Amino acid sequence: MSETIGPIDASKTPRYAGIATFARLPRLDQVESADVAVVGIPFDSGVSYRPGARFGPSHVRESSRLLRPYNPATDVEPFAQQQVADAGDIPVNPFIIDEAIATIELEASKLLATGAKLMTIGGDHTIALPLLRALHAIHGPIAVVHFDAHLDTWDTYFGVETTHGTPFRRASEEGLIDMTASMHVGIRGPLYSAQDLAEDTRLGFQIVSCRDVEIDGLPSALDAIRARVGNRPTYVSVDIDVLDPGHAPGTGTPEAGGLTSRELLEMIRIFGEMNLISADVVEVAPAYDHAQITGIAAAHVAYELISAMAAGRNR
Amino acid sequence: MSETIGPIDASKTPRYAGIATFARLPRLDQVESADVAVVGIPFDSGVSYRPGARFGPSHVRESSRLLRPYNPATDVEPFAQQQVADAGDIPVNPFIIDEAIATIELEASKLLATGAKLMTIGGDHTIALPLLRALHAIHGPIAVVHFDAHLDTWDTYFGVETTHGTPFRRASEEGLIDMTASMHVGIRGPLYSAQDLAEDTRLGFQIVSCRDVEIDGLPSALDAIRARVGNRPTYVSVDIDVLDPGHAPGTGTPEAGGLTSRELLEMIRIFGEMNLISADVVEVAPAYDHAQITGIAAAHVAYELISAMAAGRNR
Amino acid sequence: MSETIGPIDASKTPRYAGIATFARLPRLDQVESADVAVVGIPFDSGVSYRPGARFGPSHVRESSRLLRPYNPATDVEPFAQQQVADAGDIPVNPFIIDEAIATIELEASKLLATGAKLMTIGGDHTIALPLLRALHAIHGPIAVVHFDAHLDTWDTYFGVETTHGTPFRRASEEGLIDMTASMHVGIRGPLYSAQDLAEDTRLGFQIVSCRDVEIDGLPSALDAIRARVGNRPTYVSVDIDVLDPGHAPGTGTPEAGGLTSRELLEMIRIFGEMNLISADVVEVAPAYDHAQITGIAAAHVAYELISAMAAGRNR
Amino acid sequence: MSETIGPIDASKTPRYAGIATFARLPRLDQVESADVAVVGIPFDSGVSYRPGARFGPSHVRESSRLLRPYNPATDVEPFAQQQVADAGDIPVNPFIIDEAIATIELEASKLLATGAKLMTIGGDHTIALPLLRALHAIHGPIAVVHFDAHLDTWDTYFGVETTHGTPFRRASEEGLIDMTASMHVGIRGPLYSAQDLAEDTRLGFQIVSCRDVEIDGLPSALDAIRARVGNRPTYVSVDIDVLDPGHAPGTGTPEAGGLTSRELLEMIRIFGEMNLISADVVEVAPAYDHAQITGIAAAHVAYELISAMAAGRNR
Amino acid sequence: MSETIGPIDASKTPRYAGIATFARLPRLDQVESADVAVVGIPFDSGVSYRPGARFGPSHVRESSRLLRPYNPATDVEPFAQQQVADAGDIPVNPFIIDEAIATIELEASKLLATGAKLMTIGGDHTIALPLLRALHAIHGPIAVVHFDAHLDTWDTYFGVETTHGTPFRRASEEGLIDMTASMHVGIRGPLYSAQDLAEDTRLGFQIVSCRDVEIDGLPSALDAIRARVGNRPTYVSVDIDVLDPGHAPGTGTPEAGGLTSRELLEMIRIFGEMNLISADVVEVAPAYDHAQITGIAAAHVAYELISAMAAGRNR
Amino acid sequence: MSETIGPIDASKTPRYAGIATFARLPRLDQVESADVAVVGIPFDSGVSYRPGARFGPSHVRESSRLLRPYNPATDVEPFAQQQVADAGDIPVNPFIIDEAIATIELEASKLLATGAKLMTIGGDHTIALPLLRALHAIHGPIAVVHFDAHLDTWDTYFGVETTHGTPFRRASEEGLIDMTASMHVGIRGPLYSAQDLAEDTRLGFQIVSCRDVEIDGLPSALDAIRARVGNRPTYVSVDIDVLDPGHAPGTGTPEAGGLTSRELLEMIRIFGEMNLISADVVEVAPAYDHAQITGIAAAHVAYELISAMAAGRNR
Repeated sequence: MSETIGPIDASKTPRYAGIATFARLPRLDQVESADVAVVGIPFDSGVSYRPGARFGPSHVRESSRLLRPYNPATDVEPFAQQQVADAGDIPVNPFIIDEAIATIELEASKLLATGAKLMTIGGDHTIALPLLRALHAIHGPIAVVHFDAHLDTWDTYFGVETTHGTPFRRASEEGLIDMTASMHVGIRGPLYSAQDLAEDTRLGFQIVSCRDVEIDGLPSALDAIRARVGNRPTYVSVDIDVLDPGHAPGTGTPEAGGLTSRELLEMIRIFGEMNLISADVVEVAPAYDHAQITGIAAAHVAYELISAMAAGRNR
Repeated sequence: MSETIGPIDASKTPRYAGIATFARLPRLDQVESADVAVVGIPFDSGVSYRPGARFGPSHVRESSRLLRPYNPATDVEPFAQQQVADAGDIPVNPFIIDEAIATIELEASKLLATGAKLMTIGGDHTIALPLLRALHAIHGPIAVVHFDAHLDTWDTYFGVETTHGTPFRRASEEGLIDMTASMHVGIRGPLYSAQDLAEDTRLGFQIVSCRDVEIDGLPSALDAIRARVGNRPTYVSVDIDVLDPGHAPGTGTPEAGGLTSRELLEMIRIFGEMNLISADVVEVAPAYDHAQITGIAAAHVAYELISAMAAGRNR
Repeated sequence: MSETIGPIDASKTPRYAGIATFARLPRLDQVESADVAVVGIPFDSGVSYRPGARFGPSHVRESSRLLRPYNPATDVEPFAQQQVADAGDIPVNPFIIDEAIATIELEASKLLATGAKLMTIGGDHTIALPLLRALHAIHGPIAVVHFDAHLDTWDTYFGVETTHGTPFRRASEEGLIDMTASMHVGIRGPLYSAQDLAEDTRLGFQIVSCRDVEIDGLPSALDAIRARVGNRPTYVSVDIDVLDPGHAPGTGTPEAGGLTSRELLEMIRIFGEMNLISADVVEVAPAYDHAQITGIAAAHVAYELISAMAAGRNR
Repeated sequence: MSETIGPIDASKTPRYAGIATFARLPRLDQVESADVAVVGIPFDSGVSYRPGARFGPSHVRESSRLLRPYNPATDVEPFAQQQVADAGDIPVNPFIIDEAIATIELEASKLLATGAKLMTIGGDHTIALPLLRALHAIHGPIAVVHFDAHLDTWDTYFGVETTHGTPFRRASEEGLIDMTASMHVGIRGPLYSAQDLAEDTRLGFQIVSCRDVEIDGLPSALDAIRARVGNRPTYVSVDIDVLDPGHAPGTGTPEAGGLTSRELLEMIRIFGEMNLISADVVEVAPAYDHAQITGIAAAHVAYELISAMAAGRNR
Repeated sequence: MSETIGPIDASKTPRYAGIATFARLPRLDQVESADVAVVGIPFDSGVSYRPGARFGPSHVRESSRLLRPYNPATDVEPFAQQQVADAGDIPVNPFIIDEAIATIELEASKLLATGAKLMTIGGDHTIALPLLRALHAIHGPIAVVHFDAHLDTWDTYFGVETTHGTPFRRASEEGLIDMTASMHVGIRGPLYSAQDLAEDTRLGFQIVSCRDVEIDGLPSALDAIRARVGNRPTYVSVDIDVLDPGHAPGTGTPEAGGLTSRELLEMIRIFGEMNLISADVVEVAPAYDHAQITGIAAAHVAYELISAMAAGRNR
Repeated sequence: MSETIGPIDASKTPRYAGIATFARLPRLDQVESADVAVVGIPFDSGVSYRPGARFGPSHVRESSRLLRPYNPATDVEPFAQQQVADAGDIPVNPFIIDEAIATIELEASKLLATGAKLMTIGGDHTIALPLLRALHAIHGPIAVVHFDAHLDTWDTYFGVETTHGTPFRRASEEGLIDMTASMHVGIRGPLYSAQDLAEDTRLGFQIVSCRDVEIDGLPSALDAIRARVGNRPTYVSVDIDVLDPGHAPGTGTPEAGGLTSRELLEMIRIFGEMNLISADVVEVAPAYDHAQITGIAAAHVAYELISAMAAGRNR
């Protein structure tokens, strides 16, 4: 590995200064190559309720200025043990969903072809489908660990197959996911019918709900994830609405009764023990955020995911 | 039971579309009769600090657009197993408290006379008194489970007997409550004097405080509620300020150190095992809310209460 | 004309009470027929920058609760001199623009077929195209007076012909507008090139810019509108971003240097002298609004437009 | 006059430091006597729409920290040419309007009896009635210049005679105002009926509307005020909603199309030429304010009114 | 002890009325002497990211209006068992950090010389250094219990030794703290390097991190504090950012994954068993607060600290 | 002139996509050389009231995404007729004002030495002093046209000579400004004493106040600027608080009664006729902004200033 270039030195340039890249990291064009590419996908045309996640990437970048280079929780230097760079945004068509999805798959494949893992910042959850397509082309079926208030395995909505409520059904149908190793974490709130759960199981997902966390505790949830996923190639997809609205008001389909940010960060840390191949954090809708509460939570989620990628390299 | 009419079909009408009724349910005038009437009482003239709960009903309606028909937490279809309809608001005099209270009792009695249970959206907590009067006329003394940061059993304030700080003292004095089966849950924050607690006990209330939840855990609190209430006719009154300000900023007398929305929803679910005769959620003050954090929490509280009413029908 | 039913009596039902219809008017299903149908179109999939106008109709309804029945500025009783009713929202597909446009044209045509004029609340500006198609089918070429910061006569965007930046080009190309009598009012801010203006002229529009209002004064602008439009069948389309961001922060593509709400209302009043056949107010994006500044401005715009429709009946 | 004590020295104590009095002036108990007493009346139980003006006095105090001692617009030193002190708030019953009104009249009379003029910070507009009663007892009929979007000469509301919509009708009926010299400035927005205007005229008011200001210009409005009022003992009552919502979002019954703060301040300056006996600024509802826009406007209004009192002393 | 004077009687003066002192307590100049002086230090020139804590004292005062005189959690009457008074703010130079620090030490020493304990409201964390200097002059080395997301033991920043990131390093170097009894509680988030932790240990601090609280539970954290501190003279310094951003958005360097306000209040209560000599709550930045969530949390923290001081007197 | 590189093509990359540079222009390191360098100075340690302008540069960049390449108001293509690039931020010491000022002068001089004009985005107004020093070294005495609510010619504050209230006094004393051609525009609000005005005149400034604009109209103000400045080398410094708080809430020392954004933009356009050598827009404090009202106004101000620089090249 060539010598890595980390964030701008905060003792010379204050954290609030300079054009915002994620964590004040170098741009991808400033480094030879990257082990991890942080890439934004400003797309929200798949949203069924509050739109605005198209501003997610810029908001999370601005909210990531305080991140520092050493992660004491997992004893990792995520930006020194691997080269991490900001690849900017993938520009996509806001009016034609299918074109947008095709662009995302193409551009993600190009980045993956350089050997980089992707840490994607959404955008709405629709983008998980083309990302899984691109990853599947490399890795085959993938263990997906999906943090979300919602299942996102609905079928169609207004006759459209690819929206932010459907990526994991499509992914399952297309054989992109490892149906023996995938799961949802943080599910809560009302559904359309009990059939939703039956369908979801059929599509290959286990569930750790927010109730499970409340009643059985966090360690039990961590064990469930470990047991389900093992060392399979794993993709982690974090819909920020897995957090309670008090911890993440800036999102499109908020549901009361969610995780705390402390619980979520602790859960994500376990992927350092596993085989994390790429990840995303999606559904940050800045127009509904306040004082970057949601943006900061998402930035920390991305930081822990990148740390988990670094930890994985150490093993 | 006549065939119920549930929420508008979200696959044909997007959730953000249409004139807002609670959960996009039919209006009461659109159905033959209702098992549960959701009714707003836009009254806040009994408030001692931040007013604004008069806008609570419209705010909770707007915040309830995402509610779906199946409750997986309790395996209930709250809008299919019973007819639920939005009865609109009871218009009350904002300048004369006693007239307002009389109107509320009258209008609530009319709704109850149709056989409907009431799911009331406040408005400030003053409204619990006339609601209990109307219910007592039917049920006799009622087990009241009162979720709140505050006791609401003070005596008078500025010489006035019926304000949002006094409904449960008045109710106890009038014999409306079952003094062997009533309780406060979520109490916290400073009081005027230790005498407040002694008075409260004398008025027939037990207390599960927020400290109790922190120290003894949620299961202990659930047990305390079950043990106190049993199968008596029960009224649940939820002051949204029982939640921590982080989970419910939009309220009139916020106190730090409250419940999470996840804890509150879990607590409410147990009333499905009991004999829930009606309920309210009050003190949502939208001018202090952000991104509907508080409105969504209140909408979910109402949803779980309605679910508990449905579950009760099944037993 | 059948006996009209105006707003709910505010001396009996406080303005903040009740399920929100526009100006607390009756719903269309509560009246025999309407002279003016207020209809929402919660659609924002044509937006190029900040989305969120799908919540415009509900926000403007909530912001219209203070409107009273007599308009002293023009000595009109807009709800007594004509039957005005709230027709609810036209539910449209948020994912497929062309399907949405077809639905809007169809549903608007149905309403127009009852003899009602339409007072439409958007939604983004894309909706003006199907509305003009429906009106053209009845009236032939229409004088369009378009209040906006932007020309909205661009060609395509990301290969798509019908977005919120293109309705008036499409309308001109299709022969829907009277090219001798149409105009933009309030134009300001940077363009892509000088060619934009040349194209716009070719498409049949004259311009009164915000600079013109600043330099030449409001009376000169009023004269320009009168001279251009005369007594032709006229459609008024108000993009709320014609107001300065200080007067309308809650919109999708704000530009500094706009009109005041006082100027805009005064301009709209002159359509009482003309032949106003229908109108819209669009691009209210509530997530960016504060204290209903924008919603109230839009509600007053709609009120003045409805008043102008009433005034036209008197002549 | 004893030597006056002005604001705290900002070169020693930063403006953001210290317990907030109006303009960082001394408290009334710190000075021998005052020529002008700034007094808050935290009362909003007369409000018909958005409550919250009970927090007006503290909000305007916090928003007044930037005021400096010299007024260049009128070449007056308002705190040096007269002793101005903060008299704190008049505590009033929030639940019984009549008791509150009696308290206000009593406490205002006590302050007036010391020879001080009152610069009152509301609170809702109900408070103008007891203030006028107290002033009338000293001065007889008073020329009232009332800046407001609304007439505030309605009769009763929900059977109550004294609300924030009625003070000037009551005052006229009681003979408190000089019916040959009173007026409203800034009126706009819909009314209940044309009869409202006829009644208003009968009660002794002339009107300069916002339309008049837009069409005829500010100098014409100033002339109208001068001509109407002359040198009669004059009370100026400023409802902050006379400003456009863009300039004053933090108020209870906002109407589009209002004055700019620049226009309002210029209008108020003319009272330095007249015989200003006391004044108020009311209806600041902080929960709807942003970044103190409204609070700062109200603080400047009070500052100009106090300057006008100082200027009057010079003549 | 002379008879204490408590808060203004809320049954005569509503809580929202009157010039704001902390908890509506008397000013220091209104009492003979105080056992506890609440003092603001509006200083934020040591901030490295979001400034604004200079408005902290006035914001916390406004947010403390709801505090009542009896603390049921610890059965203490904090304002009756000891005289507590509001000493106003220490005005300090915003442009020269060293001058500000000298002023703070001087003014704090004067207050301490009267025998009062200090309950300081910041201001940024820089102020802890001069406060510890003043306390050390009386008590010698002090057990510091520091609640914070950050260590605040960095060395220099931009060549400056005294900023909000360095007070506890300076204090340790100067021998102000008891290196056998000091600790940080609530630490989380990324650091510059693993060396930060080694340095911190060398400077005399133990750590209870947020992860420790999540994994080991609150009782374990309480035990750790008790074991470390014992009965030594103890100073408690609470950076409000120890709370999760959901519970305290209004602060300068927020980090996801923090404490709940319920946990923090419970932790602070244990100092009633110990020897609490003074305390601070700092880093409230009101411009980023919403609905006083952060201000109320800080006010409750101060209330519990004052209660702990009262409890200590009882032993 | 080398071929310019304008903003990113919005028909390929949506405006909300990509890492934010000003107007989505290239970075300085992406072009050979620039005629105009847009440079941020994130410094606010000279602020006397609300801090936060250190976040001004990033906020204005994010608020400038909608700017398009052709300016119809002045028929200029500001990014095509000259090479404009984003030079990023000058990182400066937040704790030592004098060091910060020295850094700014040094870095600005380096940029100027490349032949570029500077369009600086503050930061607080302190930065105007080192910028004028750097410009004076090239141009000699400069005509300064200063748009502001405040004179900014005070002497010292807390013993410090260089704060945001003093740059133009220092500049005058140092001979940096052309005392026959400098002026303030938009002055309003209270001063410390009449002496402030006398001093200001002595320092070489004429004043066009907001009252002058209200009373005499905009054309008169434009004439005054033209007459005062002529064709001298001119620096325009825009404190965003020259706008009314309704048009620019996000600033540190707001004063009611300001300019509209429409007036300000019109005023700035006249510098296209003059000899504009560099410019700044300062005092945007994002924490107090809403929906980018202030950021957008500042972005448009910068756009018009850059347009004026382009227009000047044409003459």
